[in-house]
Amino acid sequence: MLPSHAADRLLSRIESAGAPVCVGLDPVAERMPAELRPAAGDAAAAAAVEAFSCGVLDAVAGIVPAVKVQAACFERHGPDGVAALARVLAHARAAGAFEVILDFKRGDIGISAEHYAASAHGPLPAGWTTVSAYLGTDGILPFVADDRGAFALVRTSNPSGDAVQSLRLADGRTVAEAVGDLVAAAGAATVGASGFSNLGAVVGATKRADAAALRARMPAQLFLVPGFGAQGGGVDDVLPCFRGDGRGALVTASRSVIYAFGPGDRDWRACVRRAAEDLRAQVAAGLGARA
Amino acid sequence: MLPSHAADRLLSRIESAGAPVCVGLDPVAERMPAELRPAAGDAAAAAAVEAFSCGVLDAVAGIVPAVKVQAACFERHGPDGVAALARVLAHARAAGAFEVILDFKRGDIGISAEHYAASAHGPLPAGWTTVSAYLGTDGILPFVADDRGAFALVRTSNPSGDAVQSLRLADGRTVAEAVGDLVAAAGAATVGASGFSNLGAVVGATKRADAAALRARMPAQLFLVPGFGAQGGGVDDVLPCFRGDGRGALVTASRSVIYAFGPGDRDWRACVRRAAEDLRAQVAAGLGARA
Repeated sequence: MLPSHAADRLLSRIESAGAPVCVGLDPVAERMPAELRPAAGDAAAAAAVEAFSCGVLDAVAGIVPAVKVQAACFERHGPDGVAALARVLAHARAAGAFEVILDFKRGDIGISAEHYAASAHGPLPAGWTTVSAYLGTDGILPFVADDRGAFALVRTSNPSGDAVQSLRLADGRTVAEAVGDLVAAAGAATVGASGFSNLGAVVGATKRADAAALRARMPAQLFLVPGFGAQGGGVDDVLPCFRGDGRGALVTASRSVIYAFGPGDRDWRACVRRAAEDLRAQVAAGLGARA
Repeated sequence: MLPSHAADRLLSRIESAGAPVCVGLDPVAERMPAELRPAAGDAAAAAAVEAFSCGVLDAVAGIVPAVKVQAACFERHGPDGVAALARVLAHARAAGAFEVILDFKRGDIGISAEHYAASAHGPLPAGWTTVSAYLGTDGILPFVADDRGAFALVRTSNPSGDAVQSLRLADGRTVAEAVGDLVAAAGAATVGASGFSNLGAVVGATKRADAAALRARMPAQLFLVPGFGAQGGGVDDVLPCFRGDGRGALVTASRSVIYAFGPGDRDWRACVRRAAEDLRAQVAAGLGARA
């Protein structure tokens, strides 16, 4: 039986799966298999995105311990897209095979933060969310409970993120390190039996030295590490996100898995499944080689 | 005829209205007039929130130049709530009386930012959005166009925001000031005939010295100033958000206007209208007294 504590539960699933990997669902109509490519209009696009997403979920079930669903891909299609998002999250949850991360990066305070948290705990069922940390703990804590976790945005890998996150403080820390310290402190109240907190951190995979420094400052935080595969990061780049014991990060690949088929591939689901198996094997091997 | 440039258009509406004020729509079922209070369930709540919001919009039309709609209040009711949000935004836009600000504080990068921007330019029609700046310009610029503006989160008034935004950099600036400089630079490309950029800034109303420092660093930015009225700020607190010429800020009041009725008030719309008139008069008087 799985633990109810969110981080313990994720760690348990990672152990069963054999590797700390996550498939990111960022579906866009233009890249779908030909059989699913929609007619014009938001309703048709939302239906296609939903069918594709559920197909990917079915294909990777039993292989990866977690999936991350990008809200933006659904929200761009308006209310139809959000209805599709709700059904995709429910499908993922009903499968029972994954931790489900709703990647919606909300960042508000007070009752607005509570509203967003309520949306993710009701209509959009997800065990985990991603949230902004710029507003401090007021914007983060509503998303964390005993059985619900959140990953706060600490360090992103996009070029212009440096303009804020790499700024040097008078005390020697970078802004990202200061935000990491804030997250570590805020997460101390929800550390589970695994030693990890229900408050984790988003840490991009492209800067090894940055990742190592953040790892040292946030020993109880799980790192959600996007950017593996198509976004240019490789296994060596993500290793600094892990603790010495090989735990502490969840490596996410999106496009390299969900679009792992070509125009000539008849069974796109089988291609996606193989790509998820490759992802799992690649990260497991990288962690094994280091140990 | 109104200018097409977003900031010029907002300035033009402010001039017509006689004061730089905005009504914030943050509707929650519990505080609605008795006649609208919904039965249980998200569908009923979304319908009530929609009816109340459209009633407020009708009540304040012709009084205030702008309205700000809080996405969280709708999203908490799931797909039904987002469908209601789309209709409320369309209602506000169709009235032709307001600049419409979608307060959704999105903060993502790359194609995800483009998806969110597309949602606000199509299914959720709004001339302005609010966005996070923590990810740098990658997370901001997709929301800005010739006829579309965005307010980037620079300084918030919540207590825990200080833990990030007030940190002191090695070069002497605060984090919020550095983010303000980034916003000023990013907005330089979209300055209109009014002298203001389509990229503005959210600057909370509770810290006068902070607001004055940010005003000096961002001469071409319109400040969206929440927290007036119910959240504790008064006219004196918002004056530092304005330039010497009395322009440059949009003062937003939410609860003090939209809930300006009591259990004994038969015509809640009339109460809301009077509260909007009071808001306009109060801010106009404050600016007049300073000039």
